[in-house]
Amino acid sequence: MLRTHTCGELRAEQVGQSVTLCGWVDTYRDHGGGLFVDLRDRYGLTQVVFNPPDSSAEVIEASKSLRSEYVIAVEGTVAERPTGMANTKLATGAVEVRVNRFRLLNKSLTPPVSPRGKESSGKESRGQESRGQESSGQASSDQELSGQELPSEDLRLKHRYLDLRRGKMQKTLILRDRLIKQMRDYFAEHDFLDIETPVLGRSTPEGARDYLVPSRVHPGSFYALPQSPQLYKQILMIAGYDRYVQVARCFRDEDLRADRQPEFTQLDLEMSFVDADDIMNLLDGLVARLAKQVRGIDLQTPLPRLTYAEAMDRFGHDAPDLRFGLELVDCTDLAAEADFRVFSSVANSGGKVRCINAKRGMRHYSRRGIDALTKFVGDYGAKGLAWFRVEEDGKLNSTIAKNFSPELLAQFAQRLEAQPGDLLLFVADRWEVTCKALHALRTKLGQEMKLYDPDAMHFSWVVEFPMFEYDNEAQRWTAMHHPFTAPLTEDLPLLETDPGQCRAQAYDLVVNGCEAGGGTIRIHDATTQQKVFTLLGIHEQTAQERFGFLLEALQYGAPPHGGIALGIDRLVMLFGKLENIRDAIAFPKTQKAADLMTEAPGEVDEQQLQELNIRIRSSD
Amino acid sequence: MLRTHTCGELRAEQVGQSVTLCGWVDTYRDHGGGLFVDLRDRYGLTQVVFNPPDSSAEVIEASKSLRSEYVIAVEGTVAERPTGMANTKLATGAVEVRVNRFRLLNKSLTPPVSPRGKESSGKESRGQESRGQESSGQASSDQELSGQELPSEDLRLKHRYLDLRRGKMQKTLILRDRLIKQMRDYFAEHDFLDIETPVLGRSTPEGARDYLVPSRVHPGSFYALPQSPQLYKQILMIAGYDRYVQVARCFRDEDLRADRQPEFTQLDLEMSFVDADDIMNLLDGLVARLAKQVRGIDLQTPLPRLTYAEAMDRFGHDAPDLRFGLELVDCTDLAAEADFRVFSSVANSGGKVRCINAKRGMRHYSRRGIDALTKFVGDYGAKGLAWFRVEEDGKLNSTIAKNFSPELLAQFAQRLEAQPGDLLLFVADRWEVTCKALHALRTKLGQEMKLYDPDAMHFSWVVEFPMFEYDNEAQRWTAMHHPFTAPLTEDLPLLETDPGQCRAQAYDLVVNGCEAGGGTIRIHDATTQQKVFTLLGIHEQTAQERFGFLLEALQYGAPPHGGIALGIDRLVMLFGKLENIRDAIAFPKTQKAADLMTEAPGEVDEQQLQELNIRIRSSD
Repeated sequence: MLRTHTCGELRAEQVGQSVTLCGWVDTYRDHGGGLFVDLRDRYGLTQVVFNPPDSSAEVIEASKSLRSEYVIAVEGTVAERPTGMANTKLATGAVEVRVNRFRLLNKSLTPPVSPRGKESSGKESRGQESRGQESSGQASSDQELSGQELPSEDLRLKHRYLDLRRGKMQKTLILRDRLIKQMRDYFAEHDFLDIETPVLGRSTPEGARDYLVPSRVHPGSFYALPQSPQLYKQILMIAGYDRYVQVARCFRDEDLRADRQPEFTQLDLEMSFVDADDIMNLLDGLVARLAKQVRGIDLQTPLPRLTYAEAMDRFGHDAPDLRFGLELVDCTDLAAEADFRVFSSVANSGGKVRCINAKRGMRHYSRRGIDALTKFVGDYGAKGLAWFRVEEDGKLNSTIAKNFSPELLAQFAQRLEAQPGDLLLFVADRWEVTCKALHALRTKLGQEMKLYDPDAMHFSWVVEFPMFEYDNEAQRWTAMHHPFTAPLTEDLPLLETDPGQCRAQAYDLVVNGCEAGGGTIRIHDATTQQKVFTLLGIHEQTAQERFGFLLEALQYGAPPHGGIALGIDRLVMLFGKLENIRDAIAFPKTQKAADLMTEAPGEVDEQQLQELNIRIRSSD
Repeated sequence: MLRTHTCGELRAEQVGQSVTLCGWVDTYRDHGGGLFVDLRDRYGLTQVVFNPPDSSAEVIEASKSLRSEYVIAVEGTVAERPTGMANTKLATGAVEVRVNRFRLLNKSLTPPVSPRGKESSGKESRGQESRGQESSGQASSDQELSGQELPSEDLRLKHRYLDLRRGKMQKTLILRDRLIKQMRDYFAEHDFLDIETPVLGRSTPEGARDYLVPSRVHPGSFYALPQSPQLYKQILMIAGYDRYVQVARCFRDEDLRADRQPEFTQLDLEMSFVDADDIMNLLDGLVARLAKQVRGIDLQTPLPRLTYAEAMDRFGHDAPDLRFGLELVDCTDLAAEADFRVFSSVANSGGKVRCINAKRGMRHYSRRGIDALTKFVGDYGAKGLAWFRVEEDGKLNSTIAKNFSPELLAQFAQRLEAQPGDLLLFVADRWEVTCKALHALRTKLGQEMKLYDPDAMHFSWVVEFPMFEYDNEAQRWTAMHHPFTAPLTEDLPLLETDPGQCRAQAYDLVVNGCEAGGGTIRIHDATTQQKVFTLLGIHEQTAQERFGFLLEALQYGAPPHGGIALGIDRLVMLFGKLENIRDAIAFPKTQKAADLMTEAPGEVDEQQLQELNIRIRSSD
């Protein structure tokens, strides 16, 4: 090694030792007589000093040409910092290296993206383990670069090698490494086998759009990049591998939303001879370990489990944020009795009147504030937001209060456990609209009223999803998860009689109101599988073309099995408290699916296209 | 879990316990009164018995419908096997489960590929850890399937879910899992970060052919699948990550040889502030650990290191098999003096006369045997094979001996350390031909004369490769490794004066005569990088187009760095003693790059092609 120690390693115990450090000039301060440099590497910062008598006049002279981001190797002696100069915020802050000799390993142009740049939100925080250059605490001659706000994301992505030098990015990639290592260790301890499935697969245009790869050897044929290893992992169960896990790269050629990437990484696993509880129990252990190891959070297990029906009833959403209350309360029966057409007409025509009691909300929302909330729920399809304040005497008050009898108001107050200062917010509409609008409203109230610790992580399971959703446009049933999902055993007869009521052996892992992953127990007999395909309007021939090998495999002794996939990019965001999925990935693509650093995708030679037997369509 | 124990778990200590096992009917034997089943899962085999009084008449009757590969769950009591019936070859062989109840979980058609099929070579061996169904030791009613030879590889690949049930395949995938786990643990212990690099990248048509992925969002543009993460890992070093590792999927659209796959997995790593020795030392530790943990072999480290020049001199090849001797000996100077035109003309016109002394070879090769060897070296371009036997009296004897003076023959004998019974085999030709022919001959002699233990693993390093090879056809220099490889510091001036003599900071890991991986120290300054590009005839504009971002990144403080990549599929073959790379992979492609199970590549919809803005060329 060109060094004897890293820049994060020296302590008072090494005082007097001769050492060699290598790293980047993070900041430098010319004190006339000599130079102080904070030397940086992945492991930390160490102050290195070019001063007489340790450094000769020649060395000091040469050191004056050093600039930020130059790469050097310094030889010198570890010394205690002068009294009062120790930097307690820095792990190496008790010592400095007095330089005898140094070697310039490489120069640097002035970086257009500063390694010391900070997110403008000011949310960046560094623990003991991060390299902590924020703690140098001294003025830098690079003042214009130090701690400045970040340039545009495009510029950062173009110069990703500089952006990745920032402490926050480094911390994120270290977090990602640790999360994945913990996952792999956990499953290895539980007898899982890590088995690689192909990236060059077959196109099965179910769900999202595939990325295609033209075959040179088979002209006119294409591979597809996998949207998930779903079929392969089922095959592995049929092959008797019992427990499979993989950190798998998956691909979807979709128009990207803020939290989507064309290629993404999932923790993918499958088990045989299990039911849904077994998989959730196993994952509980993983989640508790990750929370403890990565964030120091003690989770209670088993994690809370609620059914889809319960989640929709209480929160209006299948991935509820359980860090705070403000549950939805159904008041349709009471509303039916009101002399208030907005309520009674909805209540009497099959709609729902549901309420959130924003506890102590009066202090947060003035009339104007409530107007803003009304406009907000309008964006989610609600035609209005009825409200009551709860006065000091416990009475409900509102511009619409005159339409309700005192007795009825008292019943509302009782149902909603109204206390003085509370704000009651009602949406009356079709069930779907009340879910959507009140879920959005609840999320907003939670944020605005600061009802939870932003550092908290709340994990839960939502189970027993419906098997099917009816697609009104296409006039057919679609699979809520995917067509290999098994129904609850007791709901099997409903496949024939009432598919809409048929529940699936499905489970989603929910973290802070985000779906972090989901899984199902699979169908393991060909007959049920065929029945579900028929229900989904997947004709036998189509099924054979797309999944024929799976249907065939099911006939050769398929065990009961199920699995789950967790989105690793999403988990890194959640554990790292990131706001942008691109910050969770070393080399992400933009929302236009481009890599700004390598300029991918790019043009290719005509000869390459000829070999692949394809041509580009002319634009007309 | 649907089971209380696996089929590999029960021992005498559990006798008397009530248990539930799940698994596949491996073999079954109807004894009239009842049924004996070997129940199989990934963990082993357990004998389960359907016999009175434990099993009721109904249970026994129902059990008679069981067939091979049916999946069942059995409830019963663990019992000692009757005296003399214990199976000591089976981990569970002391006990059996006497069945009270069972449940048929799934049926199976008669499998076209038997899970009990064996490779015809008979090389299959199973250790304690494998599931050991070979040891049931009793006649099976499935005699026609049991232990039969394997069907064609195509049939096995089509029904991969059945082929993967075979003990040998299972053992291989478990070996693969363990190798990779050991690698990951080792590098985590050495402060490496596991960082994922993109699969959708940019086409840089250097070397092999890229797989391309048309972009929908950018019509006419293409992504390329990576041939290696080379550029990204260098970027990570420039970004200061210091130590990177990844088990990376890589892709090459090449016509496949027996040991190549279109997608393959490599252990990919890169380190900063190191020289070649640091990387080899680190890898020595890994290799020693793998050999110990996976094969129980104690390796001496540091592993032997020989230069490219030495490897070519002594073995005629840059990946020599060091499990045995039979080194090449240069006799050009002696040959020049012979009155034998075949030798003297070659020796006097710049060619080489080199010899292998096949120690004690006379007992292996008759005249006819030597004729076969002569034909064999002819396939490698040698015009002939001159030979001498060493007689009892130590004299060299041959049909050509009359052309040599006794003194010269004595000099040959001395140089070649000839002993009675030895066989001396000479090739006289251009240096390249002598290397190629004698390397092939040496390999053949080693096999045929059984000069090494086939279980032995010999690891070594070959270092100091030439930077460049001259491509006579294209009349230009090409990079022996890749264009980012750094020259030896002392050879830097040769870049300008004599590129052919310039040696690289390169190192290949060689196992049993196979290159298992290779790496280099990289160029870390833009000037040298540009110089090498120029030498390779990569024009500045081309370099900018292909690697512009790397050249730019090198200007922002690139540290000295280097790395290596090991072929994991190849290592699995070597550690698992496999003869076919497809057996090292769960779901391999054929030599025509097809997946016979999923039938990939396949046709896609016209609409998909339209969206991707491409069309298939008509065949004319």
